[in-house]
Amino acid sequence: MRKAATFIPAARYFMEVAFDGTDYNGWQWQPDAITVQEVIEKTLTQLYAGTNIAITGSSRTDAGVHANAFAVSFSVPERPAITPFKLHGALNNMLPDAIRIRSLTQVEMNFHARFNAKGKAYTYIINHGQKSPFNNRYTLFSHQRLNVQAIREAAAQLVGTHDFSSFAVNNRQYKTTVRTISRIGIQEFGDLICITFVGNGFLYKMIRCIIGTLLAVGIGKSSPAAVGEILTAKERDAAHNTALPHGLFLMKVFYDESEMENFELKEIPFMYQV
Amino acid sequence: MRKAATFIPAARYFMEVAFDGTDYNGWQWQPDAITVQEVIEKTLTQLYAGTNIAITGSSRTDAGVHANAFAVSFSVPERPAITPFKLHGALNNMLPDAIRIRSLTQVEMNFHARFNAKGKAYTYIINHGQKSPFNNRYTLFSHQRLNVQAIREAAAQLVGTHDFSSFAVNNRQYKTTVRTISRIGIQEFGDLICITFVGNGFLYKMIRCIIGTLLAVGIGKSSPAAVGEILTAKERDAAHNTALPHGLFLMKVFYDESEMENFELKEIPFMYQV
Repeated sequence: MRKAATFIPAARYFMEVAFDGTDYNGWQWQPDAITVQEVIEKTLTQLYAGTNIAITGSSRTDAGVHANAFAVSFSVPERPAITPFKLHGALNNMLPDAIRIRSLTQVEMNFHARFNAKGKAYTYIINHGQKSPFNNRYTLFSHQRLNVQAIREAAAQLVGTHDFSSFAVNNRQYKTTVRTISRIGIQEFGDLICITFVGNGFLYKMIRCIIGTLLAVGIGKSSPAAVGEILTAKERDAAHNTALPHGLFLMKVFYDESEMENFELKEIPFMYQV
Repeated sequence: MRKAATFIPAARYFMEVAFDGTDYNGWQWQPDAITVQEVIEKTLTQLYAGTNIAITGSSRTDAGVHANAFAVSFSVPERPAITPFKLHGALNNMLPDAIRIRSLTQVEMNFHARFNAKGKAYTYIINHGQKSPFNNRYTLFSHQRLNVQAIREAAAQLVGTHDFSSFAVNNRQYKTTVRTISRIGIQEFGDLICITFVGNGFLYKMIRCIIGTLLAVGIGKSSPAAVGEILTAKERDAAHNTALPHGLFLMKVFYDESEMENFELKEIPFMYQV
């Protein structure tokens, strides 16, 4: 069970975390499954001599989804011996190889990884060539060759400010289902197709719902034009199946508009194999 | 226990196999550990209705070593319903994701994956940046930043025909420890250093012994000039430690001199991450 933090905060930290989601049940604490949040909190609690440290993630991520730079904020009690530099090293020494702290810096006491976020970038990777043991954990395998040009045309209709309720589940939790996708970049590296979404926020399972529909377009089961109709239907049933989680990477969380605008779509977690 | 094949061979096949060596105890059958050879033989035996099929690999590979295109030959009894095309598909359907058949073709009855091989290419990958969950299984992590120019100079001394007994173990099994390394290519992709060796044959653990010494050069513990001295010493003790297996990939087995000459050193199993 997760324990509450009971101390006077002396410093606040921001960190970016890369993780292989394969063996975790997502980010957020759950009663009967191991999650990334739980593993990091327990490690921090050890480092702070048993004081419960609670960490806040920039979002939930589903079981199986990976992160290149998931954003986290947390407060710690006074412990002068642990500088941010030492804390970063100590965490990486203690955490499993599947979870790596990429950066750790001190921030203002009121900084919040979720509320202060201005946007996010996600990349979904599809392999439409031969199945490979080396990218199997990180790409969705498509038995059928995909029409990438049709996927590009379909994706173009999703750029902009729209009500994305056709491409999300559990929409009742939101005040509004309107979101802005500022860019969608599609790149091919050999047989890998990398689809990157940059936007101000994403609804629950939104990327995976969109990918499911783009896959339907890619195999010719749906048309690029149909994607606009699905969007205006505002009905989850209008769209296609939700794609599996293991091709999805949270690439970056932005806290600054210009960082979001300048994010290079060519940044993908790894590239193609021979 | 491995069972002998007892049938009249009707056809002979050649296949190239990619495997993630992490969870296998190398290629070759062993009494108390699971190996790639065992997994493929058992699958073939199922496909041939219980007839034991014995397969021959182009070499042993150690536990933890990966293969991009390990070469295999084997004979099968008459079974007209299974064409090479169907056999290829059936094997990939039944094998675990960590083992993939990349190609399968019919060859002459006397073709032998090991005896007919003209040469091989191996790539060893070192990460001297941040540890990453996404390439951890496939790269050796170096805590210290390496001097790549010094590694290049050291490697250049190993190209050519030499007695490589300083860089191998169990040398008594060989009639000669003279081998030819025709090329060593060193490329950097972000923080990854990929060192590719092309040669007519390699002694037991030869690449890993060489990499151990190149790492010593990279951190300044040894000099490029010392590598020439280690080579002429013809003593395993003259060289440095054997590098861990998980950064090593058997990239290709060549059955034709021109294929070996034309092999592109830029072919690596996956590329760098952001």
